[in-house]
Amino acid sequence: MSFSFEVTGHLEGRAGRTGVIHTPHGAIETPAFIVVGTKATVKGVLPEALRELGAQAVLANAYHLYLQPGADIVDEAGGLSEFMAWHGPTFTDSGGFQVMSLGSGFKKVLAMDTAGLADDDVIAEGKSRMAHVDEDGVTFTSHLNGDRHRFTPEVSMQIQHQLGADVIFAFDELTTLMNTRRYQEESVERTHRWAARCLAEHRRLTSERSGKPYQALFGVVQGAQYEDLRRQAARGLADLEVDGQRFDGFGLGGALEKQNLGTIVGWMSEELPEDRPRHLLGISEPDDLFAAVEAGADTFDCVNPSRVARNAAIYTADGRYNVNTARSRRSFEPLEDGCDCYTCTHYTRAYLHHLFKAKEILASTLATIHNERFTVRLVDNIRHALAAGQFDAYREEFLGRFYAASRSGT
Amino acid sequence: MSFSFEVTGHLEGRAGRTGVIHTPHGAIETPAFIVVGTKATVKGVLPEALRELGAQAVLANAYHLYLQPGADIVDEAGGLSEFMAWHGPTFTDSGGFQVMSLGSGFKKVLAMDTAGLADDDVIAEGKSRMAHVDEDGVTFTSHLNGDRHRFTPEVSMQIQHQLGADVIFAFDELTTLMNTRRYQEESVERTHRWAARCLAEHRRLTSERSGKPYQALFGVVQGAQYEDLRRQAARGLADLEVDGQRFDGFGLGGALEKQNLGTIVGWMSEELPEDRPRHLLGISEPDDLFAAVEAGADTFDCVNPSRVARNAAIYTADGRYNVNTARSRRSFEPLEDGCDCYTCTHYTRAYLHHLFKAKEILASTLATIHNERFTVRLVDNIRHALAAGQFDAYREEFLGRFYAASRSGT
Repeated sequence: MSFSFEVTGHLEGRAGRTGVIHTPHGAIETPAFIVVGTKATVKGVLPEALRELGAQAVLANAYHLYLQPGADIVDEAGGLSEFMAWHGPTFTDSGGFQVMSLGSGFKKVLAMDTAGLADDDVIAEGKSRMAHVDEDGVTFTSHLNGDRHRFTPEVSMQIQHQLGADVIFAFDELTTLMNTRRYQEESVERTHRWAARCLAEHRRLTSERSGKPYQALFGVVQGAQYEDLRRQAARGLADLEVDGQRFDGFGLGGALEKQNLGTIVGWMSEELPEDRPRHLLGISEPDDLFAAVEAGADTFDCVNPSRVARNAAIYTADGRYNVNTARSRRSFEPLEDGCDCYTCTHYTRAYLHHLFKAKEILASTLATIHNERFTVRLVDNIRHALAAGQFDAYREEFLGRFYAASRSGT
Repeated sequence: MSFSFEVTGHLEGRAGRTGVIHTPHGAIETPAFIVVGTKATVKGVLPEALRELGAQAVLANAYHLYLQPGADIVDEAGGLSEFMAWHGPTFTDSGGFQVMSLGSGFKKVLAMDTAGLADDDVIAEGKSRMAHVDEDGVTFTSHLNGDRHRFTPEVSMQIQHQLGADVIFAFDELTTLMNTRRYQEESVERTHRWAARCLAEHRRLTSERSGKPYQALFGVVQGAQYEDLRRQAARGLADLEVDGQRFDGFGLGGALEKQNLGTIVGWMSEELPEDRPRHLLGISEPDDLFAAVEAGADTFDCVNPSRVARNAAIYTADGRYNVNTARSRRSFEPLEDGCDCYTCTHYTRAYLHHLFKAKEILASTLATIHNERFTVRLVDNIRHALAAGQFDAYREEFLGRFYAASRSGT
């Protein structure tokens, strides 16, 4: 079975839509939140629990898996899905973000929520930049052991073919809001040239993959905060065809200012073809999810739900709170009232509080299950609301309650 | 439902037997290995996974739960079983071992395998002794924050009644093989007096527990390496009756030299009544399990299978190996050939190797599931072999293969 996308419904008058992405490992109903398993594991959570919490797909990272254990080992294991025993659809990020951000003190200049960074991606500020971009690719230093490595569009494709995810991404250059307009123009043009090389290499590798399922390749749209660059980049990738190979979908990448998220996604959606899916990289906050869906994004990923869970931060319909503070010590209620997740149906806040205080592994596991369920369910509900013509009403109700409670400190 | 024990079979000519312990939370077929969940969690493993790996009961620790979260909170939560969502039988250790060993540099003089210590029990050597024993009880310093606390037999019973496990232990004094013979004599006598106080307090607390299930109280036999003291202690506890209350079973405690383990357990079994169960505290090595079963022990607990799992040490029928070494990097076999555990039926050594290298939480979870399954299954097989009259043959076969492989470095 190959890759396809069907649009099943529209948000009247706007770019938002519902759909189904078909992959060799199963279908994804969109809009959908894709959980992040950077190193071929969603930290602390077994695949069965991911399935039970409603996760439709998992996104791992080419950079991290290239360094450890090595893409060849994942390949020999039968690919990412087999290696990690997650038998649903998988994505891999190209590594472009990580090779540029790791070791560069990037965090401070990245306006996009740093929740999009895996723990391993957050390096102490002030380190000298360890990545260098040239026309051919990026030379960088491993954050693990200081070894020098080089990624090019071709290398990224080769690695992602070895990893074998259902959806892979073109290798792009990540810029920041601090770069000059001139640099952004050059970068968008370079990313376009790299995209063409990715298509060519993907085609070559696909023709050698006899017997293995087809991997869909998504081009990544950059252009920072500039409307003309975003539109130019999107159109360019949408039209790009190399030896009959086109992109199967698109990644919406780069530095996005939160307040303009919907607007910028909207520019890209207008230029991109209706019949190919759009994945917005690195968001999970409720207001961002509504804005992105409205503007035409189909799928999302983010490490944030699990990362904050490991620090005891719990998402609920009434806002976020920290279960490690004293007020949860004697609370024999679930983490979130009415939640259907495994954690909430089996444990109390008092137990989670105890596990965090005792520094027990299960604290991370149980909190992550809840936060991932919260986020997956929210996007599922957005999808249902959109399909039922209730998107705006649901948005107002959900965000009103969520942020009112957060503001009042509940 | 109350507590009872039935002997269902005997090892011909020796003290070993099979049986069933009935508790308010279910039955335990003996011999049985009881998994340790020191702080009301088996580190990294969900209760469903414990049940799936065949665990019949979980043992938690009164000392640790008294300090964090506090026994009152576990009580309010509905007891240990409810708090941790493990709905099978539970045990709590009395805390006697921990109040004496924590902070005392005890490790270096304890001949008994230190695998019997939870991670939190192993303190850097050379610290000044932080526990002081007098006739009434033990004053000690919390290893968490330096607060002073006092355990007496009555306090231990009160804590264990709040925790609400099905099987609880009398508060005893732990000595070491380094203590003088004279001190061991005094200690055995003191532990006997404490046992009587435990029975009285247990009776009082039980009479106040209307509506709650009965908790069985086990007396703990000490006496170090001295045959006369061990026999005297066992007889004393077996005969002890306070206001009509007797011990429901016995803990076999204290410092046991590995080479004399079977002999010492045998002395106690000869003195203890046939119709009450015997729990040997803190063993899990295969040769020790066979020796203990042969000598009449019914149940065992030990943190070792999970503790070494978190350091990547994997038990197999062919001995123990470390999955973190390079030879597992490309091994696409299960941790143990033919093993029926969740980890072995879903993952390869290469994946576990990767998780350990990447310092992923799931490494501990998956390795622990395997090692606990290995130990539970071994004791289950010993039970089946004993029932079938094949104990000696199974022991020879199992230990021959296990230790031959270990010696050859496999």
